[in-house]
Amino acid sequence: MGPLLKEIRHNPMLWLLVFVPLVLVAAKLKPEAHTLLFVLSVMAIVPLAALLSHATEAVAAKTGDAAGGLLNATLGNLTELVIALTALRAGQYMLVKASIAGAIVTNTLFMLGASFLLGGLKHHMQEFNRVSARVQAGLLFLASIALLVPSAVATADSASGTAFTQHLSLGLAVLLIVAYALGMLFSLKTHRELFASAEHAEEGGEPPWPIRLALVTLAAVTVLVALVSEIFVESVQKAAEDFGMTPAFVGFIIVALVGGAAEMASAFSGARKNRLDLSVGIALGSASQIALFVAPVLVLLSYVIGPTPMDLQLWPGAVVMVLVATLTASLVTNSGRSAWFVGVLVLMVYLVFAMTLYLLPPRAV
Amino acid sequence: MGPLLKEIRHNPMLWLLVFVPLVLVAAKLKPEAHTLLFVLSVMAIVPLAALLSHATEAVAAKTGDAAGGLLNATLGNLTELVIALTALRAGQYMLVKASIAGAIVTNTLFMLGASFLLGGLKHHMQEFNRVSARVQAGLLFLASIALLVPSAVATADSASGTAFTQHLSLGLAVLLIVAYALGMLFSLKTHRELFASAEHAEEGGEPPWPIRLALVTLAAVTVLVALVSEIFVESVQKAAEDFGMTPAFVGFIIVALVGGAAEMASAFSGARKNRLDLSVGIALGSASQIALFVAPVLVLLSYVIGPTPMDLQLWPGAVVMVLVATLTASLVTNSGRSAWFVGVLVLMVYLVFAMTLYLLPPRAV
Amino acid sequence: MGPLLKEIRHNPMLWLLVFVPLVLVAAKLKPEAHTLLFVLSVMAIVPLAALLSHATEAVAAKTGDAAGGLLNATLGNLTELVIALTALRAGQYMLVKASIAGAIVTNTLFMLGASFLLGGLKHHMQEFNRVSARVQAGLLFLASIALLVPSAVATADSASGTAFTQHLSLGLAVLLIVAYALGMLFSLKTHRELFASAEHAEEGGEPPWPIRLALVTLAAVTVLVALVSEIFVESVQKAAEDFGMTPAFVGFIIVALVGGAAEMASAFSGARKNRLDLSVGIALGSASQIALFVAPVLVLLSYVIGPTPMDLQLWPGAVVMVLVATLTASLVTNSGRSAWFVGVLVLMVYLVFAMTLYLLPPRAV
Repeated sequence: MGPLLKEIRHNPMLWLLVFVPLVLVAAKLKPEAHTLLFVLSVMAIVPLAALLSHATEAVAAKTGDAAGGLLNATLGNLTELVIALTALRAGQYMLVKASIAGAIVTNTLFMLGASFLLGGLKHHMQEFNRVSARVQAGLLFLASIALLVPSAVATADSASGTAFTQHLSLGLAVLLIVAYALGMLFSLKTHRELFASAEHAEEGGEPPWPIRLALVTLAAVTVLVALVSEIFVESVQKAAEDFGMTPAFVGFIIVALVGGAAEMASAFSGARKNRLDLSVGIALGSASQIALFVAPVLVLLSYVIGPTPMDLQLWPGAVVMVLVATLTASLVTNSGRSAWFVGVLVLMVYLVFAMTLYLLPPRAV
Repeated sequence: MGPLLKEIRHNPMLWLLVFVPLVLVAAKLKPEAHTLLFVLSVMAIVPLAALLSHATEAVAAKTGDAAGGLLNATLGNLTELVIALTALRAGQYMLVKASIAGAIVTNTLFMLGASFLLGGLKHHMQEFNRVSARVQAGLLFLASIALLVPSAVATADSASGTAFTQHLSLGLAVLLIVAYALGMLFSLKTHRELFASAEHAEEGGEPPWPIRLALVTLAAVTVLVALVSEIFVESVQKAAEDFGMTPAFVGFIIVALVGGAAEMASAFSGARKNRLDLSVGIALGSASQIALFVAPVLVLLSYVIGPTPMDLQLWPGAVVMVLVATLTASLVTNSGRSAWFVGVLVLMVYLVFAMTLYLLPPRAV
Repeated sequence: MGPLLKEIRHNPMLWLLVFVPLVLVAAKLKPEAHTLLFVLSVMAIVPLAALLSHATEAVAAKTGDAAGGLLNATLGNLTELVIALTALRAGQYMLVKASIAGAIVTNTLFMLGASFLLGGLKHHMQEFNRVSARVQAGLLFLASIALLVPSAVATADSASGTAFTQHLSLGLAVLLIVAYALGMLFSLKTHRELFASAEHAEEGGEPPWPIRLALVTLAAVTVLVALVSEIFVESVQKAAEDFGMTPAFVGFIIVALVGGAAEMASAFSGARKNRLDLSVGIALGSASQIALFVAPVLVLLSYVIGPTPMDLQLWPGAVVMVLVATLTASLVTNSGRSAWFVGVLVLMVYLVFAMTLYLLPPRAV
């Protein structure tokens, strides 16, 4: 327990862990206080996500390079996965889809843009590994094509019906997972030298956690995230109405920011330390992991745990946003160089989307 | 007055100034001769625009680097702004929007393409500052996203209504102006060394105008442009019908070519002299200025001087054209090299659009 | 005849020539056996296409550089042209359009992707001439814009009617052919040094065919392709129903794969020999030839030989696929380097499209 307590003492974000028991107690005592439960569960998820990502990295560091990379690549977005699974079991497919699309957009635009801006305010011009960024952007592009097709076809012909959309979604889910697996084979095995400088390992001089502590933390925190997620998913829609937010804004922006808080902290700190490789790797890697692994896994799991099978069809506005986000990420990472204004441009695109979703009349989605 | 007269004697385009009194007299005597007034007002606006841009540059040269750049960046498209303001006051929002979209498309496709072609016919292979081109293309991309979003959302949900579109347009207008201001901070202040070779200053050996003459010319010509624009805006739609042109073609192609004639002359002459940096800077700079400064200013001013607030919503075809134009500009300026065929390709895209607008049945817009 | 027989003995694909008499006899004896005729005609077209492309190259090699390039560029897709002409005469415009769009998509995604994958499995990292790839991708981009515009406008306003679409298609066809001709002037004449390493000439040590044999083969095989195509076009739709395939899948995937089999063999063998320039040149060159030469020629010929004029309007899904294919080709060829995973990504996009078309309910197109 020593390293865990030390970690908590050093990392102010982890003090928020006090909200974990608070929210669990509050949910028992006042199950109707949606706004309170929403705020408490957000405050509780953020430090749990940080702890989860720390424990994953600790396990990955112990298990060696390839296995560690594999572990990081599958468990790196465990928080988002657990939240989405909870919403899936509750049958809230709209929230699941909005949070998937939102996580892709938030990671590619907000996390990347803010990293460029924060890094650029401190360093005149920053460089990063463009080869690795291109592979990630390529994977993301493929994923947004796969997300685009069922929606485009369904829009063009509303009579084609759910059977077609479901078969197609199932096939696409399998394709995406295969592409993701091959991408890992490429970046961790056959062409790992191309990704050299983007490695996440060098977190400074601190000794890594013992493997047993890391595994226990991983398991325990996952359970806690699942418990808190349930409260979060139940309260978020009603709380959003109280705050005057549309459901689309909640799924797209709030859930994505909450789920990705821990990764954002790492990405921003990397950018400030002029290690933009780290930031770009986290932002694009996390986005492609959600698009190519989390989303199809949710589609497949919906056949097992959901009330009905879930398809990959998003509403047209979400498809446009995912495509634009992917294209923006391609364009800005293409040169391998960055300055503060590039960050401003990327953040502006994010703001345009956030503003649109905030103002959108609720019926429109 | 000496330098002004000398300028007029040397620059054949300025002989067209004789049409300025002609059109003003004709508008008094024959207010119903729309076709005549249209032709005369076009002939009058072209030299006024040239004079305006010359006076702006003369003032900018006197006021030093940063302030001069700022002046050039805000007054560089004064002609387009005055024409659009006249149409705005007359409540002709369709014409205003078509001329904004048309100016973006004409600057990125026609001005850029013709510069590449004219330069390439004389020089085997030309190079230009790709960093500066990329920043401009990035700004343009952001602006077309902002223009795309209200139209896309409004198309998807026709019930969402004007209140939503207007709030969104207002918010987007503010965002665009902020992005434009930050872009100037970046290119004129914090990272000016990146834009070094694209400077407009070196207009040859001629001594610059005295500041007082430049200021008086600026003021007087602006008034004249405003007077002639009024005649132009009144006559253009009816004259277009006589010529068998659709309103979309007039706003998109005719108004844009008339308003940008002076800048085109500079861009083409730069390309012939193998100073493609100048041409690319004028073409992309002017397009982003219209998208990020003129368009939002018009939206904001419509609350003050227009009959009703104007939104940013374009018809779908215009959105597609602006997006394609921006993407084309990104793709062709990415390599920093050009040959004649690149110009042909860009001009072909422009011709495809012009042909579509020319053939489009009037009801379709 | 010596070289022709030697060629047949060495190239196992040409043994399929035995199916040519078989299919012609079968069509006489059993005109109702659609599935059989379909399979036989596919087996017959593949070797004929290979022979055609060999004869074209032999003629091109004899007639010198510029004229040979011209010949290759116009006759390189003779098989596709003959099949499409047969369908055009039969008034099957849907099949013609699907096969044009399908040939563009198949060449840019399947041929390019499989070349990258096959080459990458043997060579760790491959390089190719990016300048030549960029010009081809630029031409393709222009062509997909031209294909996009009539469809986009017609979708937006269904009342605009066929007269508009036909005038526009005619104008666009002329524009595309002019662009194609200028592109050849650029790559074969004014800037040929840029395309140096992408030349197709070096087919190894074999002595070229005598010119007379090549010309006779060219003429005779074209007649045979025309005869077999007629059987193919008549049988393909009914056979597809028997196999449970949608008409869109047949036109897009089956016809395109059959028509391009010979070029694919060359492209793949080039990739295995680490001459990726050859593969990229064949894939992109063939796609732009179909978009900029075959498609507009078919539009123009439809005024002469078709029952009614054919326009360039595709269904929305096909436009999306052509645009995505073009954009993908631009993105992956931009860096001039390739590894196996790039091929996987490109093939995945193709698989997404093929799966969608396969599952699409027949009424939807």
